[in-house]
Amino acid sequence: MESMRAAQLLELPIELRSDRGSSLPSQLAAAVRELIDTGVLAAGDALPSTRAWARQLSISRGTVVTAFEQLGAEGYLEARRGSATRVNPRLAAMHPRPPSPAHVSTPQAAPLGSVSASAPTPARRRPQTAPRAPRVIHDLTPDRPSTEHLVTPAWRAAWRTAAETVPAALPPAGLPALREQIVEHLRRMRGVRRDADAVIVTAGAREGLALLMLALFGTAAAPAIGVESPGYPSLRRVVTRLGARLQQLQVDTSGLLTDRLPQPPETVPDAVIVTPSHQYPLGGSLPADRRRELLEWARRNEVVIIEDDYDSELRYVGQPLPALAALDDPHDGVVVTLGTYSKTVAPEVATGFVIAGDRLRERMLQVRRDLGSPVSAVTQIAFAEYLASGELRRHTARMRRIYRQRRSRVLTRLQGVRGITVFPMDGGLHAVIEVMHDSKQAEAMRTPAAGAGRAQGDASRASRERETGLVRRCTAAGLAVSPLSTYWSSGDDGESRHGIVIGYGHLDDQELDAAMLALARVLIEESV
Amino acid sequence: MESMRAAQLLELPIELRSDRGSSLPSQLAAAVRELIDTGVLAAGDALPSTRAWARQLSISRGTVVTAFEQLGAEGYLEARRGSATRVNPRLAAMHPRPPSPAHVSTPQAAPLGSVSASAPTPARRRPQTAPRAPRVIHDLTPDRPSTEHLVTPAWRAAWRTAAETVPAALPPAGLPALREQIVEHLRRMRGVRRDADAVIVTAGAREGLALLMLALFGTAAAPAIGVESPGYPSLRRVVTRLGARLQQLQVDTSGLLTDRLPQPPETVPDAVIVTPSHQYPLGGSLPADRRRELLEWARRNEVVIIEDDYDSELRYVGQPLPALAALDDPHDGVVVTLGTYSKTVAPEVATGFVIAGDRLRERMLQVRRDLGSPVSAVTQIAFAEYLASGELRRHTARMRRIYRQRRSRVLTRLQGVRGITVFPMDGGLHAVIEVMHDSKQAEAMRTPAAGAGRAQGDASRASRERETGLVRRCTAAGLAVSPLSTYWSSGDDGESRHGIVIGYGHLDDQELDAAMLALARVLIEESV
Repeated sequence: MESMRAAQLLELPIELRSDRGSSLPSQLAAAVRELIDTGVLAAGDALPSTRAWARQLSISRGTVVTAFEQLGAEGYLEARRGSATRVNPRLAAMHPRPPSPAHVSTPQAAPLGSVSASAPTPARRRPQTAPRAPRVIHDLTPDRPSTEHLVTPAWRAAWRTAAETVPAALPPAGLPALREQIVEHLRRMRGVRRDADAVIVTAGAREGLALLMLALFGTAAAPAIGVESPGYPSLRRVVTRLGARLQQLQVDTSGLLTDRLPQPPETVPDAVIVTPSHQYPLGGSLPADRRRELLEWARRNEVVIIEDDYDSELRYVGQPLPALAALDDPHDGVVVTLGTYSKTVAPEVATGFVIAGDRLRERMLQVRRDLGSPVSAVTQIAFAEYLASGELRRHTARMRRIYRQRRSRVLTRLQGVRGITVFPMDGGLHAVIEVMHDSKQAEAMRTPAAGAGRAQGDASRASRERETGLVRRCTAAGLAVSPLSTYWSSGDDGESRHGIVIGYGHLDDQELDAAMLALARVLIEESV
Repeated sequence: MESMRAAQLLELPIELRSDRGSSLPSQLAAAVRELIDTGVLAAGDALPSTRAWARQLSISRGTVVTAFEQLGAEGYLEARRGSATRVNPRLAAMHPRPPSPAHVSTPQAAPLGSVSASAPTPARRRPQTAPRAPRVIHDLTPDRPSTEHLVTPAWRAAWRTAAETVPAALPPAGLPALREQIVEHLRRMRGVRRDADAVIVTAGAREGLALLMLALFGTAAAPAIGVESPGYPSLRRVVTRLGARLQQLQVDTSGLLTDRLPQPPETVPDAVIVTPSHQYPLGGSLPADRRRELLEWARRNEVVIIEDDYDSELRYVGQPLPALAALDDPHDGVVVTLGTYSKTVAPEVATGFVIAGDRLRERMLQVRRDLGSPVSAVTQIAFAEYLASGELRRHTARMRRIYRQRRSRVLTRLQGVRGITVFPMDGGLHAVIEVMHDSKQAEAMRTPAAGAGRAQGDASRASRERETGLVRRCTAAGLAVSPLSTYWSSGDDGESRHGIVIGYGHLDDQELDAAMLALARVLIEESV
């Protein structure tokens, strides 16, 4: 059946043109991506061989291989030695899906700004397999903040003032009064000293990243962007949408492994996206020596560091390190910081900012002038008022207390469950629960030495199966959770780890207790 | 001096790489565009010959010619037979500049959504020649709506409700209640019947166009987009920013010349941007037979029609024709309509919408899920409330009455000024004042027959000089206006017409009287 599909696929009209201002591998990758996006190819479908594609399209096999490698890095395809390349079987889970009763939820709920993709949407028109889908009783989709305490007199007053103000033209960087408030907040909370001129108001971190990508690379270049693996899938999707290739960077529980950063003559990426304050999703904070190594490496190799500072203010243990930008030159630096109010206010307010050095900021403003700013003047005035009233600081402090209590509840409820590791939750709104198959497996994971490869492969396969089983049982029990392995951008089983990611910030005490009880039951049942 | 610059230019590090996933002409065009954007090359600078570039960069001359043609179409370069290609001398005027005292303003104020590029911004860091810049006494920058009557009890109430509502996740297409209001408004006012599902809420027409471009072409393709010439510079800049080539389409005073649309084997564009309701800036409304021809041509050639429906509700004479979308198939059509509240509310609210058929809408929603929606939930709730209250219809009706009176004032004040043509102002917020050098010139413009070419060239040169002089005199008199010729996307003198474009919607009666008096004085002085 699959091989029939594969053969039929070659009949599809894929038109490659040498005059298109884009390379043949890019065009082929785009065509296959579209076949997947439109549902012509489904998750798990086998593809024809590179040789068959090359013959059919009258192109070199190298062109097909390059296109497939790109799609592999983007997570669309999965290559396995000795068998056909296929559409990533976990692809459905990697793309945003509504947290509807029909589906286990996926890591779409964002550590970063703008209206959440986790919304209840008409999902893509792909045949949905939802005959026996159980109801979601507890939605543990990661990273949704609690908004129950947001609407206060100060919040209302800020919008009232904004609605009273006759809209007037704003500079493309945004309302000066808002930018002043942003730099004041950054100085106090993130150790970053900048002029208001260094700030561009955005519609959230993703919009800021898109603006930066267009400013840095336009559309003609196909830059390589280094991303943490595991890392935040949502920013990766922005990067690939804008035509960039992903290059994976290794992390451990403290964050980016700076001694594994690619060095010439290896391919050095044009930019890297990093989460130094709170590695996503594993939770570490990048130690000072690695921060310096990262900066030196970036300066030496002319790499732009994109600092994703998504939830640094929601820290429960110790003090957060200052933002990476604090170590950088304000005018001629290599760091661009993406800020967002997605976690401290709500993703749906679609508001954030970018801080960058002079030259990059100018280029971003040129793009802004051409594309227009998407952030309403009313919203900018309301945010300027809200920050000036001091209410955002108070709200964040209040929510930090509440989240800290919820975190304790999670840890208490999961205490004593064997066979899992709950990652240190020093901050944020989610918890990572890793499954380990057994102690031998744990050993193999820890010592990836020569000869251990096979054992590791077996162990990895076993833990993947355990993840699949766990997610299925969660779904059956009415718990919407995210599979941990989907945070790795490659389909390489040897690299990814397995378990689930859960969000706990948005559930009140009673619901959280009930949800953790249900989850603990699934975990215990599952481990016996 | 210029030739020295040209020679030095060849020393600049322009790096072209064959492995970049983008063609060499695209890379060269991007490099030269950047030299211009960053001010290394200034308006009027002569460039080295294509031969010299080819030699220096070890590429074919054809590559250089292709890159230059592209930059010519974008308005960056101007080629003249027999002399060096140079940076478009009118380039400064084509790029957004603040309507500051230092500059004659340019056609940046938008017929279309999102925060206006005409904002008082820190202009690009290019040496500014503003030693004797006179003060702007009357800002006649085109197309700014009047916002003095916007803040009403219903406006305030809409935002109050929005601020009371705890933000919740929205579908990527936008708040369902807002989309319902939008289709209801379109049905009543624009003759377009669609389900709410056909609508995607945007941050204005430019954001909607960017979304559509990414959905249609991604970044790898370099599509050709047909644009009206003259036409709206702001949308053109979105198109070129996203990597597309511009292909010019001829218009007359009724709009697009459908019998001159390119037919195979000519290159047919992938999409066209048209203003059927109110051609920008000349003001015509596309007759029904041309509408049908356009639709048939688009269907035959698989071209997407992007309908820029920017100010159709501000019509003073007769009834507007329904939107082009009204003639199209709701599910399987070729028309995508860009809607905006930029004119009826204010550009600074950065809110608009897109209507598209099923397949295209799905593709746009896929991009939305990846990039996130930039439109705040608070704004969407406020707009849904505002539309539901009926206040937008009332506000539009009130403003139409006010604008109609202002239009009469303009016509009255300019009556009797010789040597100019004021284009029929059937609607909108601007007036086009064309200068004619003399009757012989007018004759030559009307009959572009064989042999008339030389006379036409002379006449065109003369009227261009008159435009330059007129703009200079306006500036000296403290009037900020836009040169008419900058609405043509090519530097081709034979095509463009000359005069000024002025905005009148945003000036109250007293200021408008004073401004028209000053303008009439300049026009009369200038014609003697």
